[in-house]
Formats: sequence, C-alpha cells, structure tokens
Amino acid sequence: MTAFMPVTDKVIEDLCAIVGPHNVSVDEEKRLAYSRDEVGVQFWDRQYCADVVVFPESTEHVSRIMAYANDKVIPVTPRGAGTGLSGGAVPAFGGIIMSFEKMNRILELDLENLTVTVEPGVVTSEIQSVAMKHSLQYAGDPCSGDASFIGGNVAENAGGNKVIKYGTTGANVLGLEVVLPSGEITWFGGKRRKDVTGLDLVHLMVGSEGTLGVVTKIILKLVPLQERIVDLLVPFEKVEDAISFVPKVITEAKIVPVALEFMDRRALKIVSRYLGSSLPFDDAGAHLIIQLEGNDPEVLADEYEKVGDMCLESGALEVFVADNRNFREKLWKARKGIAEAVMAFYTKYAKEDISVPIKEVPALIKAVDEVCRKWDLEAANYGHAGDGNVHINLLAGEDRVDWHEAIEGARIDLYEVTKKLGGTLSGEHGIGLKRKKYIGMFLDEAQIRLIKGIKQVFDPKGILNPGKLVE
Amino acid sequence: MTAFMPVTDKVIEDLCAIVGPHNVSVDEEKRLAYSRDEVGVQFWDRQYCADVVVFPESTEHVSRIMAYANDKVIPVTPRGAGTGLSGGAVPAFGGIIMSFEKMNRILELDLENLTVTVEPGVVTSEIQSVAMKHSLQYAGDPCSGDASFIGGNVAENAGGNKVIKYGTTGANVLGLEVVLPSGEITWFGGKRRKDVTGLDLVHLMVGSEGTLGVVTKIILKLVPLQERIVDLLVPFEKVEDAISFVPKVITEAKIVPVALEFMDRRALKIVSRYLGSSLPFDDAGAHLIIQLEGNDPEVLADEYEKVGDMCLESGALEVFVADNRNFREKLWKARKGIAEAVMAFYTKYAKEDISVPIKEVPALIKAVDEVCRKWDLEAANYGHAGDGNVHINLLAGEDRVDWHEAIEGARIDLYEVTKKLGGTLSGEHGIGLKRKKYIGMFLDEAQIRLIKGIKQVFDPKGILNPGKLVE
Repeated sequence: MTAFMPVTDKVIEDLCAIVGPHNVSVDEEKRLAYSRDEVGVQFWDRQYCADVVVFPESTEHVSRIMAYANDKVIPVTPRGAGTGLSGGAVPAFGGIIMSFEKMNRILELDLENLTVTVEPGVVTSEIQSVAMKHSLQYAGDPCSGDASFIGGNVAENAGGNKVIKYGTTGANVLGLEVVLPSGEITWFGGKRRKDVTGLDLVHLMVGSEGTLGVVTKIILKLVPLQERIVDLLVPFEKVEDAISFVPKVITEAKIVPVALEFMDRRALKIVSRYLGSSLPFDDAGAHLIIQLEGNDPEVLADEYEKVGDMCLESGALEVFVADNRNFREKLWKARKGIAEAVMAFYTKYAKEDISVPIKEVPALIKAVDEVCRKWDLEAANYGHAGDGNVHINLLAGEDRVDWHEAIEGARIDLYEVTKKLGGTLSGEHGIGLKRKKYIGMFLDEAQIRLIKGIKQVFDPKGILNPGKLVE
Repeated sequence: MTAFMPVTDKVIEDLCAIVGPHNVSVDEEKRLAYSRDEVGVQFWDRQYCADVVVFPESTEHVSRIMAYANDKVIPVTPRGAGTGLSGGAVPAFGGIIMSFEKMNRILELDLENLTVTVEPGVVTSEIQSVAMKHSLQYAGDPCSGDASFIGGNVAENAGGNKVIKYGTTGANVLGLEVVLPSGEITWFGGKRRKDVTGLDLVHLMVGSEGTLGVVTKIILKLVPLQERIVDLLVPFEKVEDAISFVPKVITEAKIVPVALEFMDRRALKIVSRYLGSSLPFDDAGAHLIIQLEGNDPEVLADEYEKVGDMCLESGALEVFVADNRNFREKLWKARKGIAEAVMAFYTKYAKEDISVPIKEVPALIKAVDEVCRKWDLEAANYGHAGDGNVHINLLAGEDRVDWHEAIEGARIDLYEVTKKLGGTLSGEHGIGLKRKKYIGMFLDEAQIRLIKGIKQVFDPKGILNPGKLVE
C-alpha cells in the first residue's frame, strides 16, 4: 500500500484554484456528513472522516482533481447520494471526498436512439420521470431510486425490483465517460448497442465501486413503457410455500413478471409498525408481490388470473389485485420501507444481501432459521425472490451483550451455507468497506490476484477509493 | 513480447502424456485445417500454421496443457468450430491449437433455475434444440448457430438476429469455468442472477477472444419460448426509406421485435443467385425482415398489422406476412446465406462489421455509397438494422489490379465516418488478427494501455492466443 500524503493547507488552496473556493469544504460537520453512507456509523470500529469535500461541476474539474491527487498521492473517494449499504463511499483513508451533487444534469434525451445521457449526480427517479413523459422507461430501478444518484447505481451495479425482467443497472448501461486516476478522460462504449472492439471495459467499470475510475457521464438505454401495470399481493401461511411458488411463474406460467418480491412475517410487522398501517393478512408467514405489465388489458388480465389461480393452488391464503394506484402505492411503500423500518427500531442489526440461484431461496431461508436458533437471533427476511437476492436482516434486542460475537458467528455460518448453495456475498449492495473481510470466503486466490492486478493497472498509485473490495 | 519456445518432439511426447496420443495431431493437413477460420487464407500475408493440434476431453486436460505451455512458454490458441470472421482462432505464432470439439457435452439442463450448463464445444443450435423441448429458449443466437460452438460465441461475444430483444451472447451468460494461463481452474459467476462480489470478471471474459483465459464450462440462462412467431418481409424501393423506418417500430409502435434485419438489393441478388431462388420484389432497393413473437395470437396479429401499416405509410412496396414455416425458412435462408454467397462469387471482398447508433444507419449507408464511388468498389450491405450493426461487404471484380490499395483506402474512409457517427470497428465479429491494425482508430491510448495491462495480469507470459486484439 502506497503511503498517502496529508491534505495540507496548500492542498486545500490548490483544490480551491481548480474548482473554486465555493466548491471546497473543510467544515468538520460537512466532512463528517459526507464521510457516511447508510451503513451506520456504529458499524465501524472508528469514525472515518475525509479531510476535504470537493464538489466538481464538470468533467474537466474531475480530471484536474484526479491528476492533482494522483501527482500528490492523496486518496480520492467518489460519492453519490450516500444511500449505499456497504460503506463504498466511506473514505477509509481520509483524503478527498468527491461529491457529485453538482454534476446533476440530464444532458440529452435521444428519442431516436432510445438513450438518455446523464451526469452521475442525477437522482435516478428523475431519469424515470423524463423518460415516462415520452412513454419510455429506464429499466434499472433500485428501491432507493427516489434518493440515490445514478452514478452510485453504476458504481455498485444496483439491482432493484425489475431485475428479473430488465436486468441490473449494468444491463441498462451503454456507455460511460470515465476519468482515470491519471486524470485522462476517456469513453467506454457509447450509444451503439453492440461493441466488441477491445475488452468490455464498460461492464468492468459497472460495479467496480469507484475503485478503477470516476464516471462522469452515463449513457443509459431506454425501453418502451408498458401501458398497464398490475400488482398482486399474495399472502401465504408458510414462508416455504411462498418461496417455493416463485419460480413457477416463469417455469410453469411462462410469464416473466416485472417484479417478484417477498416479505416474511417479521419484516412486514416491523414495517407496518413503522408506517402505522398494515397490509391484509399481516399474520401470514410471508407475502409475495408479483408485478405484471403489458399493453393489452385482456392479455394482462388473463395473465394475472392465471398467476393468481396458480398461487391459490400452491397454498396462497388470498390473492389481492392491486390495479389501482392507491393500493399499489401502499404495498410498495411497505416493501420499500422495510430497510428504513429495521433501522428505526433496532440498533443491533445486520443487513445481509445474499444472492443464490433462484431455486435455492427456500433452502437459504431454512438455513437462516437454523443460524438464528444457534446464535439466538431474530431474522426479518425480504427481497427479490424472483432473482434469488434476499435481504436477510439479523436482529437482536438493545440489551444483547454478546452481539458482536453472535453476529460474527452467525455471518460465517450464513456465508458458508450461501456458498454451498452456489450463492454469493452480495447481490446488489456491494462489498465496499463492510464486506471486504468476508470476500475471501467467496473468491479464490486467483480471482483476488486478478482483481488486485486490474486495480493496479487502472490505479497504479492506489489513490482511488482505497481500502475497498479486496484491498 | 516473450520469445516463444519451439514445439519439439519432446513437447509432443509430453502433450501425448497429458491428453493421450489419440488427442494429439501433428499431421500437416490437419494442422493447416485447424489454423484457419472463415476469414479466408488469402486475407493473410503468409500462411499461419500450428505446430500441433490437441483435443482436450476435460477441464483437467485443459488445465494441465495450460500449466505445461505456460511453463515452457509455448503459445496456445483455443479454437471452436472455426466459423470466426476475424482470425481470432488463427495461431499467429504457431504453437498449440486447442480444439474443443471433444468437449461437447450439454452437462445439465436445470429447469428450476432456468439455466443450461454446457461445455464449449457444443454446437449452439443443439442448446436451442434441448431448450425448446421444454418450451424454453437460449436467446443468444448468432446466424452461424447451426455450425458455431458456444465457446466461440462466448469468446467473440457473438451477436445475431435477436440482440434487439434479448441482447448479445454476453447478456445470456451467467457463469464461466475458466482455466487461466497458469493452469489454475476457477469459476466466474454461477447460476445466481445477481453478483456484485468483486469485479465483473464474467463479462470481462466474454468477448476477450481467448486472450485472457480458456473457458471450459458455460452457464447460460434460458427464457420462456414464445408460442408464436411471425416474420414480415418488407421490400422498400429505396434503401434509405427502409433504414429510416427501422427505429419507428420501437419508438412509435412501442414494440420491441425479436429481429429487425435488412438486406440491400445487391446482397439479395447475390444470395438469390447462390441459392437459385429469389424473394418477391427482388429489384427493390432493400428488404426488411421484422420478426415478432408472442403467446396470444390476437395480440400478435394486432402487432404485425400495426407494424405492417406503418411500413406501408413509410413507403414499403408490399408487406408479406410469413406466418408459415416454409416461407419463413425461405426468407431466413436468404438472410443467413449472404455471407457464404459473397464468398462463393467474389474473391476480392472485405466483410466489414460496423456498429453505429441505430439512427445513424442511414448516414452510414450513404457514406458507404460515397466510399464506393471514390474507390470504384461495389457494396452489398445487410445486417442487424435494429441494433445498428451493419455487415458492409466491399467488393471488386476478379480483374481488379489495385485491390489492396483500394480496399485499404476504402476501409480507412469508412472507419473515419464510422467514428464520426459514434460507431465502432466491430459489433460482433471481433478484432482478432484481421482488425487489430485498425483498433487504434477507435480506442485511445489510455484504453489500449488498460487492455494491455489486463492481458498482462491474466497472462503474464503472453502465451494465450498471442498477437490478437491490441498486441
């Protein structure tokens, strides 16, 4: 590891000369605020804090900051909206936080090429709003879309509810303008749909957690918006029945839903208490939310009736059809509110982001029960049942004294099962600072060597978001 | 560049000990045959020839060959079915050709996870046949699917006719077993749908043209097969009208077709002569083939009527609905036969594989006309209009004396226009040996440095498929 140079008054002065004094902050409160994401400060063994926060307004600014920092060997940690769940934007070695909140323009909506070109600081849902005006959609849609920046989505390869039909963020990215640690500005990909000219550097960047280069422009593809959406809310008495039903939608009904989410009893109880409103059958073992879409109302009705009937045959307690906006919003508010609700009621929680092959979700949930029994923990499970990505929340009461020991043991047990099931450590939240100590359970020596080697190629001095992934 | 060691009798003996003598060939005819792909020997300035061809039967074989070759510093060039169009499998430095024709098993069809696990030597269409028996499909479907190996498709990130709806090969790959040049065996990805644990090495491998590692197992995702397919054959008087119509299917009709292909007049004439049968309106400037699919016959009929009406409004001479197998096979035989037909009638041809943003296809076709006028060449153009990937065939008669000069000048002009249009050198055929001298027109210094660096990380001695891409 390179020895980093300190951020002196001279460095601050130089940064002010590059981006203007109004785009540089050394205020302590601000530095602390911009050194956090949603992992929660209590997770870390010490308080991380950047020495300075800079707010570039252009690619040129980013390029000059990077060239400067590279020359002076000062760490730079790029930051989106701070909605991350892995400490990816936490400055592990202090230095410069580069916030993208001022690079927040939608640069071009190209209706002929079906692309939108944006700066990294655009809130994801704004892209959606612009696209929807033209009956189009950006299909990468993380649950945090109302707050997260698209740049952060790209850095983490965010998933979300629509992956089963439309893929992750990466599947919807066509091109990236990238500033390398050297300050060089380059373009990977573009508006073209196919490109085998060289290696696929676009998708090497996506999900690289800001460790290889700084993304300064993003070209996303758009797809036609379907005219009609229907959500089914389906309570099952047993969580196993709910989860076992999931793959049948595709394999038996031959329907690819937009979303296929689940929440278990505890997850639903917590969010109901948090929101002060509940969903029907709130004592059921688990609820599925199945979203279907289409342009033809009759075909859509046929599809949801078919899926609904299959649910009932598989032990569903009831099938609620949310074909109006109010009900739909209510149920998605519940689904999307769980993460926040857990944090509101628990201080001792671990948010896991396990991804397994779809058919292994029941085995995973069963293993979570066993892990909880062994370590005397509770679990609230929810997530993207349709793509096998389950957000397991391991919980304990405030008074639990051996929390650290218990959660550490539980994690190791959970990860071992995950690995046996052909799964992995993180499906969409990323490794960042939070999970890097466990990555060796999932990647072998060769892979870690390759990843470290690639990092070295992109960032020889190791100044870009140091201390993340495998470092 | 490393100095490679010669393939001595001792080396042959050692290889025989690894894979068995029946899996090693030094027969000259065989060595020559396995040193070619479909680029055509006349393209090269000298005859490339491997020193030995080996036929591994297992990952273990591949691993031991690689470890041996790495130790002895002998070049290894992996080879699929030899249907490549860029010299990707041509052994630029001799050494060992590793043919995958004996690793041709479909290992597992997993109907619950909707995946199929295959060895690299499986013919792509066989995967399709197996999937179709279960009303599923593998959606990566290159035009060469009846002959090409899936391993070659992965190495080149093959495209094909369905990219507009289902993406390229890469979009359909979930996991890869890879043997690194060191002989280490590792897995990138798996059956899980989401994975952000580390960098995306799966998609770094896809399209890397066998330069980073040797793929020995492939996990592909399957999607539900739609019950009904309809192809529209639509002749237009002017090629511009045909091409300008293309994006409207998505932007105005809001329909994402499975395929949206075009053939210009000369392409159709050549293939008609080759097949001894013609399509209606064979004097038209261009024909589009628009494939739609669905489960509901009425919705599908509505869609093709809508698209058909739009064609007629946009100047189509006629709309033929190929809703029966015979007509469909006939028109696809024409579309898929063009590449072969060109080679049957011309010895002086250059097959280009330009990819541009969809809306720039008309500008590209116009530029091709100008380039042909300037260099006194003919052009037969066809390809994937729906995704912007156009196969431009630049042609001259047998008696053309300054062919090399003309084609070189024409290429440079064509590539310059391509670049201006936001396009790139290759959409699906790859760089290989054929296009590497032009890659510097499309990748900047930083990108070439990064690609060389990544190659060095994976293959420090440079033994794996040397002389390709940017080397």
